[in-house]
Amino acid sequence: MTERQTGDVSKYWSPTARSIEPYTPGEQPRDRRYIKLNTNESPYPPAPAVLEAIGRAADESLRLYPDPECEDFRTTVGRYFGLQGDQVFPGNGSDELLAFAYFAFFDPDAAEPILFPDITYSFFPVYASLFRIPFERVPLREDFSIPLEPFCRPNGGIVLANPNAPTGMCLSIDAVRSILEGNGNRVVIVDEAYIDFGGDTAAGLVPEFPNLLVIHTLSKSRSLAGLRVAYALGQAELIEGINRIKNSINSYTLDRLALAGATAAMKEESYYREMRGKITATRERVTGALVDMGFTVVPSRANFIFTSHPTEPAGSLFSSLRELGILVRYFNLPRIDNHLRVTIGTDAEMDAFLAALKRLV
Amino acid sequence: MTERQTGDVSKYWSPTARSIEPYTPGEQPRDRRYIKLNTNESPYPPAPAVLEAIGRAADESLRLYPDPECEDFRTTVGRYFGLQGDQVFPGNGSDELLAFAYFAFFDPDAAEPILFPDITYSFFPVYASLFRIPFERVPLREDFSIPLEPFCRPNGGIVLANPNAPTGMCLSIDAVRSILEGNGNRVVIVDEAYIDFGGDTAAGLVPEFPNLLVIHTLSKSRSLAGLRVAYALGQAELIEGINRIKNSINSYTLDRLALAGATAAMKEESYYREMRGKITATRERVTGALVDMGFTVVPSRANFIFTSHPTEPAGSLFSSLRELGILVRYFNLPRIDNHLRVTIGTDAEMDAFLAALKRLV
Repeated sequence: MTERQTGDVSKYWSPTARSIEPYTPGEQPRDRRYIKLNTNESPYPPAPAVLEAIGRAADESLRLYPDPECEDFRTTVGRYFGLQGDQVFPGNGSDELLAFAYFAFFDPDAAEPILFPDITYSFFPVYASLFRIPFERVPLREDFSIPLEPFCRPNGGIVLANPNAPTGMCLSIDAVRSILEGNGNRVVIVDEAYIDFGGDTAAGLVPEFPNLLVIHTLSKSRSLAGLRVAYALGQAELIEGINRIKNSINSYTLDRLALAGATAAMKEESYYREMRGKITATRERVTGALVDMGFTVVPSRANFIFTSHPTEPAGSLFSSLRELGILVRYFNLPRIDNHLRVTIGTDAEMDAFLAALKRLV
Repeated sequence: MTERQTGDVSKYWSPTARSIEPYTPGEQPRDRRYIKLNTNESPYPPAPAVLEAIGRAADESLRLYPDPECEDFRTTVGRYFGLQGDQVFPGNGSDELLAFAYFAFFDPDAAEPILFPDITYSFFPVYASLFRIPFERVPLREDFSIPLEPFCRPNGGIVLANPNAPTGMCLSIDAVRSILEGNGNRVVIVDEAYIDFGGDTAAGLVPEFPNLLVIHTLSKSRSLAGLRVAYALGQAELIEGINRIKNSINSYTLDRLALAGATAAMKEESYYREMRGKITATRERVTGALVDMGFTVVPSRANFIFTSHPTEPAGSLFSSLRELGILVRYFNLPRIDNHLRVTIGTDAEMDAFLAALKRLV
């Protein structure tokens, strides 16, 4: 999922810049028009009120700095979850929030490594390398489910994606609770980028667990990947820790337009509920169709599915789909190099995807 | 310029989160309407074409990620300076770029410290503390000018603001060149946030010096503090180093709206030249008026002035101006605790500022 970028090492680079292996995001094609099922964007537009709010904010006040505290947005998010504004930390996408959280909570000199699954969001080990935090990968079970006990052994912190990526599998709230209880002295980061597509958020556990940091993004379920807004939820003490890192890097990570659009998006619940309903209905229909075609499909609570075919190698399916104008994501990595991750698009896009597969298998 | 934030240290914080002293940005008031001369924003609106470009971008394509490479923006900036796109690195404000550059080019284990002036942008030491990079402050001369020789002694890198902040004084291009020549094996970062108000940019030296990184922002001279866009200029090898850090933190630091607005802004040269002309004319007029009132004013090439009065302490002037509804910036720090930094506003705002001062001195 990551690959070393090409090019010689420069004498001007720091040891960190030399040694890291940066994350490689999914392709954003420029050469032709694809059916784009590779980066888990929503196929549906943002709520109209979001675009209106951005239009209103695009005036001459852009000459002024944004609110560095993002007060309106934090209050709005807090209200949405029944939390206080100081239990919310806004960021420029969940990737930035994860980076800040690693920096704020994990100790490079800790005796024990931080833990995350061997199959999970491929940015997790990148942050650990960047900040020189020792880490260990906990193997998922054979069916890609997350075992609980290994996450309760001595560690320097826990990072989980829930639902997990790229599998789409979801931990129950009881499972999350047991991991929190087993790690009272360590921060547990739960990256819930895909939680709105069928999982139960751990946001409600924030008042109970001072070691819990939940991270949400507006990129997926709120159709705003292009706006770069996410937020973390946690007790004020954790939020203040991230804030200290952020205020040592960039006072203003969210521009006025992003703040306006994101604040509006948090108030458009019925619109977004309807869009999520469409996406999950399509997901179930496509899952059924794939199973009928002989594919195995990991049970997904996300806006993507993780699937493999008993005879057609995923790598060649990936290439053939690309030639047919359909982009999906393929990770050439141990244990998952025979799977494809396919974003749920519109019904028409998924029909085209299924039709293409029928030609290929 | 920085102050330790209040609140107890948390057991969940990393050693870095515990020890850093975050930067404190200038006040963004919410309680009442001030004449705001405290954060060096432009008093004039962005070019109309910028707002139009943002309006066009605020459509349903916001559901899709932005271009992680920012190709259009990089090409546009490159063309503006006669450089290649791979000699341009876009960032979410110059603060973020500075953070990435420290991380990419300065070595925490270097035998020699990085160097910057004792009086300069107060974020410089914050980054050094954050990344545990040894640093040393080089004293400015008595008149706040930057001495050259101390910046050519053995070091781990150089960071300069040119024009310097909060003084507004500017190094000549020959002076910058001599620092670059004296530091062939070290990266020299020149933060030119205020260069458009009368200084000579070092951008033209990029093809000649592989150790030069120039940083510009659209927040000041392009009236876009609210949009969070800046860029670094350097040879491809340096740009790739920053890129490796950025791609280990956040694949997409600029949203679609910021990219659209910033790209348009780089093409509106005649509008922005006119606005800069107004600001520098106002600066000269206000400087004259202050001198007539007995103030000393440091010669400024920026959109602010740095001034002190022989008998009225700056700290009390700051407070009195605030009570009169005028915000300026006061740094309670050695050598400059009797100076005020005053952003150049509109002529009407500056007349109000001068009238208020007349009441106070």
